[in-house]
Amino acid sequence: MKLLIVNPNISQSVTDLIAAEAQRSASGDTQLTLRTAAFGVAYIETRAEAAIGAYATLNELAEHYAGHDAAIIAAFGDPGLEAAREMLPIPVVGLTESALMSAAMLGGRIGIVAISQRIRAWYSETVDRYGMTSRLASIRCLDEPLPNIGSVQQDKGEQLVALCEAAVREDGADVLIIAGAPLAGLARSVAERIPVPVVDGVSCAVHQAELLARLNPHKASAGSYAVPPEKSWTGLSPALGQLIGRQRIS
Amino acid sequence: MKLLIVNPNISQSVTDLIAAEAQRSASGDTQLTLRTAAFGVAYIETRAEAAIGAYATLNELAEHYAGHDAAIIAAFGDPGLEAAREMLPIPVVGLTESALMSAAMLGGRIGIVAISQRIRAWYSETVDRYGMTSRLASIRCLDEPLPNIGSVQQDKGEQLVALCEAAVREDGADVLIIAGAPLAGLARSVAERIPVPVVDGVSCAVHQAELLARLNPHKASAGSYAVPPEKSWTGLSPALGQLIGRQRIS
Amino acid sequence: MKLLIVNPNISQSVTDLIAAEAQRSASGDTQLTLRTAAFGVAYIETRAEAAIGAYATLNELAEHYAGHDAAIIAAFGDPGLEAAREMLPIPVVGLTESALMSAAMLGGRIGIVAISQRIRAWYSETVDRYGMTSRLASIRCLDEPLPNIGSVQQDKGEQLVALCEAAVREDGADVLIIAGAPLAGLARSVAERIPVPVVDGVSCAVHQAELLARLNPHKASAGSYAVPPEKSWTGLSPALGQLIGRQRIS
Amino acid sequence: MKLLIVNPNISQSVTDLIAAEAQRSASGDTQLTLRTAAFGVAYIETRAEAAIGAYATLNELAEHYAGHDAAIIAAFGDPGLEAAREMLPIPVVGLTESALMSAAMLGGRIGIVAISQRIRAWYSETVDRYGMTSRLASIRCLDEPLPNIGSVQQDKGEQLVALCEAAVREDGADVLIIAGAPLAGLARSVAERIPVPVVDGVSCAVHQAELLARLNPHKASAGSYAVPPEKSWTGLSPALGQLIGRQRIS
Amino acid sequence: MKLLIVNPNISQSVTDLIAAEAQRSASGDTQLTLRTAAFGVAYIETRAEAAIGAYATLNELAEHYAGHDAAIIAAFGDPGLEAAREMLPIPVVGLTESALMSAAMLGGRIGIVAISQRIRAWYSETVDRYGMTSRLASIRCLDEPLPNIGSVQQDKGEQLVALCEAAVREDGADVLIIAGAPLAGLARSVAERIPVPVVDGVSCAVHQAELLARLNPHKASAGSYAVPPEKSWTGLSPALGQLIGRQRIS
Amino acid sequence: MKLLIVNPNISQSVTDLIAAEAQRSASGDTQLTLRTAAFGVAYIETRAEAAIGAYATLNELAEHYAGHDAAIIAAFGDPGLEAAREMLPIPVVGLTESALMSAAMLGGRIGIVAISQRIRAWYSETVDRYGMTSRLASIRCLDEPLPNIGSVQQDKGEQLVALCEAAVREDGADVLIIAGAPLAGLARSVAERIPVPVVDGVSCAVHQAELLARLNPHKASAGSYAVPPEKSWTGLSPALGQLIGRQRIS
Repeated sequence: MKLLIVNPNISQSVTDLIAAEAQRSASGDTQLTLRTAAFGVAYIETRAEAAIGAYATLNELAEHYAGHDAAIIAAFGDPGLEAAREMLPIPVVGLTESALMSAAMLGGRIGIVAISQRIRAWYSETVDRYGMTSRLASIRCLDEPLPNIGSVQQDKGEQLVALCEAAVREDGADVLIIAGAPLAGLARSVAERIPVPVVDGVSCAVHQAELLARLNPHKASAGSYAVPPEKSWTGLSPALGQLIGRQRIS
Repeated sequence: MKLLIVNPNISQSVTDLIAAEAQRSASGDTQLTLRTAAFGVAYIETRAEAAIGAYATLNELAEHYAGHDAAIIAAFGDPGLEAAREMLPIPVVGLTESALMSAAMLGGRIGIVAISQRIRAWYSETVDRYGMTSRLASIRCLDEPLPNIGSVQQDKGEQLVALCEAAVREDGADVLIIAGAPLAGLARSVAERIPVPVVDGVSCAVHQAELLARLNPHKASAGSYAVPPEKSWTGLSPALGQLIGRQRIS
Repeated sequence: MKLLIVNPNISQSVTDLIAAEAQRSASGDTQLTLRTAAFGVAYIETRAEAAIGAYATLNELAEHYAGHDAAIIAAFGDPGLEAAREMLPIPVVGLTESALMSAAMLGGRIGIVAISQRIRAWYSETVDRYGMTSRLASIRCLDEPLPNIGSVQQDKGEQLVALCEAAVREDGADVLIIAGAPLAGLARSVAERIPVPVVDGVSCAVHQAELLARLNPHKASAGSYAVPPEKSWTGLSPALGQLIGRQRIS
Repeated sequence: MKLLIVNPNISQSVTDLIAAEAQRSASGDTQLTLRTAAFGVAYIETRAEAAIGAYATLNELAEHYAGHDAAIIAAFGDPGLEAAREMLPIPVVGLTESALMSAAMLGGRIGIVAISQRIRAWYSETVDRYGMTSRLASIRCLDEPLPNIGSVQQDKGEQLVALCEAAVREDGADVLIIAGAPLAGLARSVAERIPVPVVDGVSCAVHQAELLARLNPHKASAGSYAVPPEKSWTGLSPALGQLIGRQRIS
Repeated sequence: MKLLIVNPNISQSVTDLIAAEAQRSASGDTQLTLRTAAFGVAYIETRAEAAIGAYATLNELAEHYAGHDAAIIAAFGDPGLEAAREMLPIPVVGLTESALMSAAMLGGRIGIVAISQRIRAWYSETVDRYGMTSRLASIRCLDEPLPNIGSVQQDKGEQLVALCEAAVREDGADVLIIAGAPLAGLARSVAERIPVPVVDGVSCAVHQAELLARLNPHKASAGSYAVPPEKSWTGLSPALGQLIGRQRIS
Repeated sequence: MKLLIVNPNISQSVTDLIAAEAQRSASGDTQLTLRTAAFGVAYIETRAEAAIGAYATLNELAEHYAGHDAAIIAAFGDPGLEAAREMLPIPVVGLTESALMSAAMLGGRIGIVAISQRIRAWYSETVDRYGMTSRLASIRCLDEPLPNIGSVQQDKGEQLVALCEAAVREDGADVLIIAGAPLAGLARSVAERIPVPVVDGVSCAVHQAELLARLNPHKASAGSYAVPPEKSWTGLSPALGQLIGRQRIS
């Protein structure tokens, strides 16, 4: 099996974290292709940054999906996920979606622990977009500047564990998601210290992508996830243009 | 990996169908233990039958879970699922839940196709229990007596395909679940004829059970899915009693 | 009028409390039959215990409903209520449902006060099952071990009154339910000290059961509360088997 | 027990229908006081007419509640119900609310059958106001002019039964409410022909009013159903002014 | 353009505040007609007072709407708004509705700051009536007696600013509404001190009323906002009676 | 006043339609700047096309917003709206949002009429994103190929009027939105033939943009619509980069 993993952020250090955790999670015979967004921001916290990341991600996916069995959008908040799902003939999952769906089978109410206050609104809207708001216990977030996004696990590990415990004791979380690609792997390393099951986005996404590829679903030819209707376009990369329509204007 | 699969119905013919599809879906090194409910009804369509099936299922799970990595409750509607998840130290999934969570990653609105009109209310309430009602496109059901529950796929195949198509064209389903253990395997055999991705409960449950076991989550020691508080009991099987409390009365 | 009251817990001391409060609430010409679950746990706090209690309750109801005008499932959380409503030809109510429906006519937002933290998730899911979550102000719970479930009113009376006041002042409750059969009668004895109307499950259930019996509704012969379709079964008590189907296997 | 029943419409013929059905439903020792709105319209179908009916009803209630144990607002749609509940020291119920709460204990999804298409929006908003929209199967309505509101049962009986059957077969109703004071008593007379339990507003309201009076709840002294804070007023009837404030402006 | 503004309260001092802020907001060529309720209370905080205010408002609107292009119901909570919208051939807006719809275009989650604890339930239900509860961050309220409703801005200005800040910092409000006609103009004068956009009901209502008048919509002749069906009435003012029906009784 | 209007589609013919209707709607002293997306597709029907259009729109807005008082994203579905609202110091509205908020003040349930079946899912999700799903009566759509998007009003006018009538008669719409920039102006020209108020996106957006500019709200400096936190970026246009962060990577 071959998985394409796109980091919608421009941070190579975060891509490296994702790659390491993804490799640890993948089946023995799974090969991973990692891509980092060609443009955008260091890490996505807002709707504006997510809109930029979505477009960068669609470009990477269009260019590189061929030959893969499934694809992963590797930023919590899943920028461009539904758009990619429409266009690509292979399954695509996001970190938030796959963590939510996995967590939902491990408990009732789901808590999310994240890296910044500002990121909360975007995450909250992402959960709502999947219709899972009634399952959400809370989103608890660090509230300090992050000097180095690549070392946030080391720098803020204790605070993150404390947020996990508060989500269980005060918010009624039955299961936790440690959110955000920069925290990839943390769930595994702190699991012993948390009184409920805890998952992370990267490992859930790799497992769910493999699962969906094994289910071998047909690409929709009807409904709202069929390929967008053919139409004229301009100014897109050839790969993206070919997916979105077939009739280029001049 | 070892999976325990409990059929909450008393029908051995349905257990055989489940076993065949589960074997086809399971990883090469996965071993399956199949159990059929010791008491109850031929197939569960109603809340009353589900309440009976839940208790029969808890008894089977309590008796046989030891030595397994995860368990599956193999009737659509998932009788006893949350109860089992509280008691057992291993992950437990149901057909409905795992099909819903898998389907949610393949499209937007989910259609369910099922074997009887009467079963609709129970299925609808099951979807609602997981907070997924906003994702539901429709539940479409056969509307004829089923003389032989074990051969419903052969007897009613064309009608079921027609229901699938109606769910897409009229109800806006982006992805379909063919529901109910008696239909295990049908999704695979008719997929070519359906214009959207189509999944079935048994294969999703086997895949998701393996996935959760690989995530290796800790059993909750806090929150509402921790083991029920110790208390006195009477009249339970020793295995069930040991899970539910430790202080037997007389 | 004759009412059948089943305590889904095995605690005779709680059955006695229920009987006393029910007798106080019932009309002069109403006769009560009290039954205690033949198997299960001392008091139900969790989904697992509720699944067991549901089956024990269905057995009691099947065995004893004949000759009664209505039945009451006398544990907050209403284990087996919808199942019983499908099977029985007489009205059946639960403590939670009848307290919620009564309280809804006395105010806007409803607060629930209960005996343990662990019980909160089950109660919350019960309220949601009736579609009443938008009416719920909060569920406030005692947070201490209960050495003796039969004397919790005496032991924890002041704490329970304090929870009531907090539900009004901090959570916006317009009306309160003191939940759980072990608290039967407390609403009456503390009403003077609570600044909003306060009801309890047992008295509401007795009154609502009488009310429904007087409305004299026909048993549904269509829809999802008609008697379950006839089908083969095994391993059930004769009384339960007769309600659930008519064709016993061997 | 003494009940005050106010018809928010000006139709004496409808008041007579209400009185007859209420008398049939009331306990042997219950005395009824019937009042008809002093101003307003023949029957309320719209939000505008309901606003007028609410004020007329509050005036009747203020003038006549003294000496009664509970009050009933006897138009489906319950004009002024929450307002009355704030002001009066006795329980107040409406036809819609008491029918919904009673029906909710007899089945899952509730169908409403009503006398005009125009009335649907107001009824739908009334159900929503009580948080019961998720329980609503459908509102089905006559679609013809009603020459005589007092004889609608005789004139349109067959059409109303057909609407009931459609609500069960096509909309999934498990229980039905025949709505509107002009249909008082119809539920009783057609019950044999309807395959699910069927209730009507007047009988439910009489029973629930008696029930609430027997619960003997204290008037709220806190929360949003306490008596409105004392303040200056003008232009109200003395009775209404006394309930709403105590400081009349010249 | 001519706008009719009705204050549903009897307080001339509040009408003066409304007039001043409305004049400041209105376009240069807009003429305002101000009316104060002929009966009712000093300021509306409860459902009962709102029901009275609704009727007083309908009377003013019926009497004076002729010759105007749009009308405004100038109390937060919008008493009688939907009723007026049914009856009148011109657009009608309320303070809450127009502030909510305006605020919704300036941010995501909306906070409301108001003048008394008691008013919260009524405001909350008003937001819910418009289907906007999911957009509501919180309603924060003063918690002290208001000796003079006409000078509340001067007397409680600092406390109101503190409530605004708490709504942003603690409740996640992205935009604020300073609610209630007695606070008309405060949003403008404190805007510099609040870290998110802040609007008030009067200025939003004037702007939205002008906007709707410019859209020049046809009065509905079908649907639930068409003029109420003609029917007999009694006891209404001639102006109101003419709007509600055409066939006066005796 | 100066308004910037960006067409997220690449169709100059649609931009011309938008310009004509916007000019007709704008106040006498309002100046309009029109921009057409530099890349993307002929008209947006899908999530994928909307993701592309969002990025193209953000680029146009960043490049050209300076000197304007408000901005309009002129495609129904509002691609990039929340992102733009975060970044820009001036108010930004979309066609869907401004039409919904305007329509909400003209009736209860809102119907949307649109140009293609495929567009329904995207529109439905847009309505949901604003929390307005409970106000939605239906989305009715043309079901034929559109050979020329610029002349759809002429080619399909009668069909669109028929959809409007069906939305009122069958779906209970109290007010209608004729959706999509290619239909700009149609609402005005067919209003006489539709029995409920009907609005269109372009005129509502122009009016609401003027309204918000006149309210003169402060740009948020806190909450989730404050400017995104400063961070490093690469590969963006200088204008967009300056809005999204200040620290460009090499």
